[in-house]
Amino acid sequence: MRALDLLLRGGRVLDVYRLRIFHGWVGIAGGKFIYVEEGDPPAHIPAHRVHDLEGALIAPGLIDAHMHVESSLLSPRRFAEAVLPHGTTCVLADPHEIANVAGKDGVRWFWEATRTLPLRVYLAIPSSVPPTEAPVETPNATLGPEDVAELLGLPGAIALGEVMDYRSLVGGVGRYAAEIAAARAARCTVEGHVPDLSGPELSAYIAHGIHSDHTLMSPAKLAEEIAKGVVPMLQEKSLSAEVVELVKSLSDRSRCLLVTDDVPPSELMGGHLSRVLSRAVALGLPPAEAFAMATARPATYLGLRHLGAVAPGRQADFLILDDILSFPPRAVYVGGRKVAEGGKTVVRMPSSTSVPPAYPAVPGPFTPADFSLPVEGEVEANVVEVLNRENSLTGLTRITVTVRDGIALYPQGLAVVGVFARRGGGRCLGLLRGLGLRDGAIATSFAHDSHNLLVVGRAPADMAAAANAVHRHGGGVAVVCGGSLRAFLHLPLLGLLADVPAEEVGIALQRIEDILRELGITHKRPFPLISVLALTVSPYYKFSDKGIVDVEGRRVLPPFA
Amino acid sequence: MRALDLLLRGGRVLDVYRLRIFHGWVGIAGGKFIYVEEGDPPAHIPAHRVHDLEGALIAPGLIDAHMHVESSLLSPRRFAEAVLPHGTTCVLADPHEIANVAGKDGVRWFWEATRTLPLRVYLAIPSSVPPTEAPVETPNATLGPEDVAELLGLPGAIALGEVMDYRSLVGGVGRYAAEIAAARAARCTVEGHVPDLSGPELSAYIAHGIHSDHTLMSPAKLAEEIAKGVVPMLQEKSLSAEVVELVKSLSDRSRCLLVTDDVPPSELMGGHLSRVLSRAVALGLPPAEAFAMATARPATYLGLRHLGAVAPGRQADFLILDDILSFPPRAVYVGGRKVAEGGKTVVRMPSSTSVPPAYPAVPGPFTPADFSLPVEGEVEANVVEVLNRENSLTGLTRITVTVRDGIALYPQGLAVVGVFARRGGGRCLGLLRGLGLRDGAIATSFAHDSHNLLVVGRAPADMAAAANAVHRHGGGVAVVCGGSLRAFLHLPLLGLLADVPAEEVGIALQRIEDILRELGITHKRPFPLISVLALTVSPYYKFSDKGIVDVEGRRVLPPFA
Repeated sequence: MRALDLLLRGGRVLDVYRLRIFHGWVGIAGGKFIYVEEGDPPAHIPAHRVHDLEGALIAPGLIDAHMHVESSLLSPRRFAEAVLPHGTTCVLADPHEIANVAGKDGVRWFWEATRTLPLRVYLAIPSSVPPTEAPVETPNATLGPEDVAELLGLPGAIALGEVMDYRSLVGGVGRYAAEIAAARAARCTVEGHVPDLSGPELSAYIAHGIHSDHTLMSPAKLAEEIAKGVVPMLQEKSLSAEVVELVKSLSDRSRCLLVTDDVPPSELMGGHLSRVLSRAVALGLPPAEAFAMATARPATYLGLRHLGAVAPGRQADFLILDDILSFPPRAVYVGGRKVAEGGKTVVRMPSSTSVPPAYPAVPGPFTPADFSLPVEGEVEANVVEVLNRENSLTGLTRITVTVRDGIALYPQGLAVVGVFARRGGGRCLGLLRGLGLRDGAIATSFAHDSHNLLVVGRAPADMAAAANAVHRHGGGVAVVCGGSLRAFLHLPLLGLLADVPAEEVGIALQRIEDILRELGITHKRPFPLISVLALTVSPYYKFSDKGIVDVEGRRVLPPFA
Repeated sequence: MRALDLLLRGGRVLDVYRLRIFHGWVGIAGGKFIYVEEGDPPAHIPAHRVHDLEGALIAPGLIDAHMHVESSLLSPRRFAEAVLPHGTTCVLADPHEIANVAGKDGVRWFWEATRTLPLRVYLAIPSSVPPTEAPVETPNATLGPEDVAELLGLPGAIALGEVMDYRSLVGGVGRYAAEIAAARAARCTVEGHVPDLSGPELSAYIAHGIHSDHTLMSPAKLAEEIAKGVVPMLQEKSLSAEVVELVKSLSDRSRCLLVTDDVPPSELMGGHLSRVLSRAVALGLPPAEAFAMATARPATYLGLRHLGAVAPGRQADFLILDDILSFPPRAVYVGGRKVAEGGKTVVRMPSSTSVPPAYPAVPGPFTPADFSLPVEGEVEANVVEVLNRENSLTGLTRITVTVRDGIALYPQGLAVVGVFARRGGGRCLGLLRGLGLRDGAIATSFAHDSHNLLVVGRAPADMAAAANAVHRHGGGVAVVCGGSLRAFLHLPLLGLLADVPAEEVGIALQRIEDILRELGITHKRPFPLISVLALTVSPYYKFSDKGIVDVEGRRVLPPFA
């Protein structure tokens, strides 16, 4: 028999193909599973190390088939350090935010930064940089079809990132036809993003070669997408009792996956894909089935034939769990090497030696005058409105506003929103209703998808101070009230990410959100809401450096007049 | 709405993802499905052609994930012509026989010959040419790892063909490590061939990166292979009530496929993958499940994301059936174009313009003296024995034989088997017991896997005449009795294939088998049995130009002494 590096005995094995747990033993050599057998190992099998698992469970490492590292506000290595202890051993990362700031060089930098990590990082090449081809904002970077084709050639690039601009795709104009052709030539998957289509409209979108959808799911949508050959990816917000019931009712569940999409730093300490898996089980999905949806099935979908199961020939990426849902795992292994134990990473992360790419700096400095409205007296205004406290939907209302000395006095409770392009000096101030902010200001250089500097506030002086704090430090999130900096999160990498432990970022962001609530913001998740106020592909009205963006209409409205 | 080339209405659609049939309509444009919707189409949808299906069923075209075109004894275009009417629209072909005769040039020729066919032909590059690296016969061609790597670069090459030499693989010597590395780099599957391993031995084989197995299946083997991550491919001989019962009991059946492997010309007229599918249903598999195992699931396994279902964006490869098992289909479409109707191909096959590769000619001419045993009197002989009339298993018996004037007189009923290398002049005569042949001789240049000239007979004069008929025509199968040629099948392409309608080959082979039975052969399938008498990887004792091959022992025994 082949000599083993590691022999695991006395444990149970989770079989994600036959969806069962069996008493068995596992032999590992050269970073791969060699033997995965029922019962006890032969008496004299040669092995360098032998572990007795004392009844613990060996499960495959979790594979996240749709996610963005940037949502964690962490550098790749700090992200890996944060998620490995929760059992995520492989991700398909779409570095969409980095690409929107630093273009092709940014994607290459991300790729380089992930090559030496103990986390397996595969790449989805962003398809939609800038997010829309409509001229509604000043982009910081552009990935043309030839850039995308080039990046699809990177080792580990196995997907074209989510195709977000439905109209461009179906209209047949623009970048997508060439990008999808390049993806198909490279035998890559093409990730979709279909929040609100059904029937023939959905088909028209899919027919361009879309393979998946990770947006909010309903039972009806899930059933239709399965039938139409789209792989539905369920993130936490999509998991409802009804959706789980539908999954369970399918004769063939092999095409349903669990993914994270975006996990903010505040949630990262509580788990990663493990949270989604646990949630699915809590809603009634059998645990082995949930594991299959986060291991073998994403591996099959992504064509990663060497991953996804505790089975001979697969890379030895696995978790040791006291029981099937005992997260964090007792230990996490990647390629046969222990990388985390008891909720902590136990391997040294590589130092960040790669030089970040050139990128447009956060604009500034600012004076209070930069936040003084450019109108006086009673003026007609296009005011964006926060529609509820649960999600990021916004509306538009046209009202008469009384402005005195550049400040909106009436109606009460309006916040000023400023967007300052990183490139070219574009800027615009507009008004927002329904946020609840009574005082102070927040500035952030992390503002989807272009990540121009976004400043939201009540007082020009506080807005200038917050903006200057972010500008001065080259990126971050700052909250100022009454002239004093109440909270600050430093995001020095591209003005987007921090290279510090996840806990620090989580705590800093927690503090920012606490203060924002203290200042009156009533929304359930203040920072995520604010960070998408400039997302020009998110329904229905958003801010850009050019004005108020009518997302559906693909046009810019003036804030005043 | 998008203008359609073809609108199908008034029919039912087989959904191989949700495993159901629904009343619906289908819109096709640019060779792809665009709309696949429930209910009736909108009133004024623009369409070039509209078909009312009057209740017929639209099902996806069948995908055969493991097969060898050569088993049909037909040229690629004649094979396509034969199988399209039965609903096979896509195959993964492993041109293993061609490669064993004509090497890399042969594979390229096959590839070229399939590029213009209405059948989609993907390529598995043969991994085992010659079949074993043990020096037990004179190979006609060799594919080294560098040849395999080069051929894996051909467009449409998506797999490494079945890895047959278990000992070389597990022993870590020889060609396989480099071949499998090349396949993985090219993101190709690696096809297995595991007739008789289980437990740790099976794992050791799989651990080298094997993805499938298509050999004879039992319920226990199927269960073990599924758990170990191997995709079990069920061919007709593997389909038993017990195996089907086990498939039905799996919670996740998505990794089980139906394949043909080898379909002899005599069976081709009765169907192709459709036969296997119908057999599975007859044994109790739900029809939609059986279809999924021959459409969507092989597409997923092979990474053919654009095939396998009647769904938006998939290539419009489909069947129109009166009902789900009404084979042959009423019509067969590939890429939205009708290619067969009512059991007949309705498109012109491309003429064979590509020049066949150079290959070693069938040896000859022969005289009766060439078939006269090289011993006289009472001699000890290693006699190969046909063990039963069902399969091709052979044993060895050591007996005393009385030879007079080069003819074995006693014991009665022995047949002489001669193998004559195409290259280098190697030749050997040996004895075979249990065939039942009373008189005459058969010669064939199609003799797995090296396809040297194989002659089996009772009378030296008949053997010489049969061999000469094959030699003179540059390939074929000849049966001679009492000096007269009783049946002949001409195989002029590489001495392996015929470029004539399948029916002609089927009838000719039928006649050959009828005569062989008339001459006393009791085996159920005389020609398949004879064609593997020189297969040096088939258990347990075979003939080569070097002597009697002890397959398990990987050594050559002398026929006499």
